[in-house]
Amino acid sequence: MATYKRYRKEDSVSYSLGLTLTFELLKYKAEYVRKIYVHSAMKPGDTLDKLTVLCKDAGIDMVYTDKIFHVLSGKENCYVIGEFSKFAGNLCIEESHVVLVNPSNAGNMGTIMRSALGFGIRQIAIVRPAVDAFDPKTVRASMGAVFSIDFKYFDSFSDYMKQFEEGRELYPFMLDAKKRIYNICPQGVFSLIFGNEATGLPEQFADIGTSVVIPHSNKIDSLNLPIAASIAMYEATKGRV
Amino acid sequence: MATYKRYRKEDSVSYSLGLTLTFELLKYKAEYVRKIYVHSAMKPGDTLDKLTVLCKDAGIDMVYTDKIFHVLSGKENCYVIGEFSKFAGNLCIEESHVVLVNPSNAGNMGTIMRSALGFGIRQIAIVRPAVDAFDPKTVRASMGAVFSIDFKYFDSFSDYMKQFEEGRELYPFMLDAKKRIYNICPQGVFSLIFGNEATGLPEQFADIGTSVVIPHSNKIDSLNLPIAASIAMYEATKGRV
Repeated sequence: MATYKRYRKEDSVSYSLGLTLTFELLKYKAEYVRKIYVHSAMKPGDTLDKLTVLCKDAGIDMVYTDKIFHVLSGKENCYVIGEFSKFAGNLCIEESHVVLVNPSNAGNMGTIMRSALGFGIRQIAIVRPAVDAFDPKTVRASMGAVFSIDFKYFDSFSDYMKQFEEGRELYPFMLDAKKRIYNICPQGVFSLIFGNEATGLPEQFADIGTSVVIPHSNKIDSLNLPIAASIAMYEATKGRV
Repeated sequence: MATYKRYRKEDSVSYSLGLTLTFELLKYKAEYVRKIYVHSAMKPGDTLDKLTVLCKDAGIDMVYTDKIFHVLSGKENCYVIGEFSKFAGNLCIEESHVVLVNPSNAGNMGTIMRSALGFGIRQIAIVRPAVDAFDPKTVRASMGAVFSIDFKYFDSFSDYMKQFEEGRELYPFMLDAKKRIYNICPQGVFSLIFGNEATGLPEQFADIGTSVVIPHSNKIDSLNLPIAASIAMYEATKGRV
């Protein structure tokens, strides 16, 4: 009899919790889906029929059980779970990137993925140590964006630079920066670089490319990371989306 | 012997969980503080001394107990809790506002408060039904902004309009809108109006003031609410902060 465990970073699979998210998974990453779990409270009808057809066409097993929901989904209304193998992504030199240096919060990373997809920045570099992009919390906060953007982990920022520095405009976001955000206007391929939620970017990033600040009053210490990253993406892509 | 209960919306008091937040509470709303709780794991030293002096000066009792932390603070490192009476705020006609119509998520509301304070918009109107601005999750996500902005609840949007419509530029944010955000430039006092996380603003808001959209790709359904609200505040206050 199957037993289910909590998700761990080391696992080779992760989960989409909820119906909408699972449809996104099936739409963009069907080849990685291993199973679809359906809760007994899921009502028969068009939605379940649609899910059943999608699974049948893709040769994916549907498992009717409530057990995995107790383990994975907490209190929320969640009647469908998708189990998928973790997949690898690649970045390319022709695309603009968001670079997250040592992000520590799964929800924040997911929210940034969602905004990135919204503003047409489809590639994200993540510099370790960093939170897990496959954490079900990241997946959920991304509203499925994790299945259609590309992301890749790097062991250090210099590893990223070795591959991608050339021919690219670099904008590290820091409080003590050269330029205010509304005075920059990327002309070509760019990278928007953000530090950890609590500590920001180390000061040596001030020597990389053009450092940028989003001005705010001295009544707050900083903007929340996904807010700052989204404002940056909004400005950098203005009029292009 | 004192017993402690989980926070409920009906309570007359709420809590700041954590040291930084409690210092913000003492800085901006000292007159509402009822007690400061200190956990046994809180180390003696300058910080505790500073807290002790502040409490002594303001005539606030410090209670050394671990019990309330078990009930209120979950797993995180939290060694100080402030208990405060809920306070009332007022809005005024000379100030620009953020108007949240039926917001449902405590963390989102707190994040919006933090951004608002950062962009110099110090007053928030909240239209019921709505999440509780005093929920400890709101307080925490606001990073203390809840103690220095003004906010007020209204039973309906028309109640808000009766008091504040006159002489004010109104900008409801909706996907199906008249103007793109970078084509608006408020000249005077304004209100930025946002709907519920899942449903947005009802369509009749299209007839109020100038409806505005933040353009994004069709790959996402919408931006996350605090992201959209923060981009709007950023644009509306650009160069003023």
